[in-house]
Amino acid sequence: MATTKVHRVINFYAGPAGLPLPALERAQEELLDFEHTGMSVMEISHRAKEYDAVHNEAIALVKELLHVPDNFKILLLQGGGNLQFAMLPMNILHSGRKADYIVTGSWAKKAFKEAKIVAGDAARCIATTEAEKFCRLPRRDEIKINSDSAYVHFCSNNTIYGTQWKTFPAAGSIPLAADMSSDFMWRPFDVKPFGFVYAGAQKNLGPSGLVVAIIRDDFLAACSDKLPSMLQYKIHADKNSLFNTPPCFSIYILRNVLAYNKSIGGLEAIQRSNLKKGELLYGCIDKYPQLYKGHVTVKEDRSLMNVDFFLPSDELTDAFIKEAKSNGMVGLKGYRDLGGIRVSMYNAVTVNNVETLVDFMEHFAKKHA
Amino acid sequence: MATTKVHRVINFYAGPAGLPLPALERAQEELLDFEHTGMSVMEISHRAKEYDAVHNEAIALVKELLHVPDNFKILLLQGGGNLQFAMLPMNILHSGRKADYIVTGSWAKKAFKEAKIVAGDAARCIATTEAEKFCRLPRRDEIKINSDSAYVHFCSNNTIYGTQWKTFPAAGSIPLAADMSSDFMWRPFDVKPFGFVYAGAQKNLGPSGLVVAIIRDDFLAACSDKLPSMLQYKIHADKNSLFNTPPCFSIYILRNVLAYNKSIGGLEAIQRSNLKKGELLYGCIDKYPQLYKGHVTVKEDRSLMNVDFFLPSDELTDAFIKEAKSNGMVGLKGYRDLGGIRVSMYNAVTVNNVETLVDFMEHFAKKHA
Repeated sequence: MATTKVHRVINFYAGPAGLPLPALERAQEELLDFEHTGMSVMEISHRAKEYDAVHNEAIALVKELLHVPDNFKILLLQGGGNLQFAMLPMNILHSGRKADYIVTGSWAKKAFKEAKIVAGDAARCIATTEAEKFCRLPRRDEIKINSDSAYVHFCSNNTIYGTQWKTFPAAGSIPLAADMSSDFMWRPFDVKPFGFVYAGAQKNLGPSGLVVAIIRDDFLAACSDKLPSMLQYKIHADKNSLFNTPPCFSIYILRNVLAYNKSIGGLEAIQRSNLKKGELLYGCIDKYPQLYKGHVTVKEDRSLMNVDFFLPSDELTDAFIKEAKSNGMVGLKGYRDLGGIRVSMYNAVTVNNVETLVDFMEHFAKKHA
Repeated sequence: MATTKVHRVINFYAGPAGLPLPALERAQEELLDFEHTGMSVMEISHRAKEYDAVHNEAIALVKELLHVPDNFKILLLQGGGNLQFAMLPMNILHSGRKADYIVTGSWAKKAFKEAKIVAGDAARCIATTEAEKFCRLPRRDEIKINSDSAYVHFCSNNTIYGTQWKTFPAAGSIPLAADMSSDFMWRPFDVKPFGFVYAGAQKNLGPSGLVVAIIRDDFLAACSDKLPSMLQYKIHADKNSLFNTPPCFSIYILRNVLAYNKSIGGLEAIQRSNLKKGELLYGCIDKYPQLYKGHVTVKEDRSLMNVDFFLPSDELTDAFIKEAKSNGMVGLKGYRDLGGIRVSMYNAVTVNNVETLVDFMEHFAKKHA
């Protein structure tokens, strides 16, 4: 392949986001001739054995890396988290069933809005920190789960506001349902309390246009079979996510990313790296409170995936973004509703990348002290 | 890039299918560093200007190559043709509206089935050739369109049974709605009689996981705004298909394919090539009627995209597939419900590729005479 070193930046985009270079190099190497088939993986029938092996390996790797028990199925879906916001209540909230929603950010709020479109008052918001601009997660004592709830929905990491549930809400025997789009597989977690977990691939997993979901057998059994076929979890589960042509190339990249994750020690090693990254970046923010002011007010709620902070003026914010860019770091501009700086450091961002950012922040702090 | 010649086969898969090599080479070349950004196109935010240019170019190329009038919008959607089978009636068949369906093959039948799930008896099958195993299209005099129909749905090319509408059904002022997944952009066509056209990308356009749709403004205005957001055509149209994160990499490949199509003379040139390919292959089939027996009984209904034929025995069928494979041609096995041989020759299959196949068929015919 290429003989000269390829130009790569440090990518702090919130999603679509950076992917591990070895996973992309593997794709580049075989883009025109996948495993001696004489075809690109995107040119092969989804019913061919060559594709089937990729599909099943991707599913098996999700299961293996997350230690998913056998009473769960992995689904590969389309339409992003947004379609899941509707599909989940469409599948579950029939026959008078109700559900509870915890609203901790823009995406959690959208999920609740779509549930209201589907199920009206059967979708209930039981806790929110919107009045505080989502600068923290609700405390345990602020969450009152209804005993008639078919699931409790929450968003595990709030990409925009930079909060993250390190410990998930406790709902007893009521199944949890979570949008994990922006922190899925950043560490191992106990899947058992969940009825349903879903994640758009474009943060930690692969290209956009693919959703990875995990559904528990009893939750699946409760799903509607009266919906259009593409909206039924049961059909996707029965057909091993091959009811229709899946997004084959995105699944192939997912496979490459997960195979790479496995090769570097699995989610246990990735978690260590993510903890280290958080320590480095929050350490620097806390060191210069006059210059870097974090959005999240409760330290244990701070996200290890998306770190929001503000500089004292728009001029300094612009200078920060510009100087970082000239140092090879992109994607640092804060979300439009919030402003400031957002550092998204998903799995593909290395400890070394964050060290480079922190060095820059130190230098920037000294320069503007 | 690679200095040795890459191994490529002649790909006759029905979909996902072959793509133009220059479109893939362009992707390979810049897979790790898209336009000097230092990122893969799949690692760039869908709100970044670099991606935005790709997105808008893809849309503009659909418009330009098909000469789409300004009162239509191009949509880039997810979920394959299958989700459109449901979204179309969900959007249109509210407030007591009804629609007519013409059922000419497996996919047309599935579209009708999903419409029945959504709208019950408001979806009406007005013509089918199922009793004849879909070996021809309905004749004009067999199609009676209801005057209260909100649209007339048909499938323009039947991938499995090998029929294709060269002249579309005439519905007067009633909008046509067509699944063109397997022959979209094989030639220019007059978009004006259509309310809605949709096509899964994985045949003529790009990777799976992307649907290209065209919707007429008056048809769009009639769409429901009571559905979950992701299922509303209005929202996708208002947001230029950026309501949520689109399948960016698939859209990028679509852009590459369409830019290549433009460079070789647009759909007018592609149509000439497709007509030539049909002439060559059907010429050979008709030359050896004892050996190659076409499935489609009416010559003008024969598809130029998918050509089904049978050999006199399973042994000869197997030998045909095996010998073709050893000559570098793959994907020729007929669909499981039909058996025999299926040659899918979408836009990326060249005249030269079909000549190679026909040479092989001539040779095979002489050997087995």
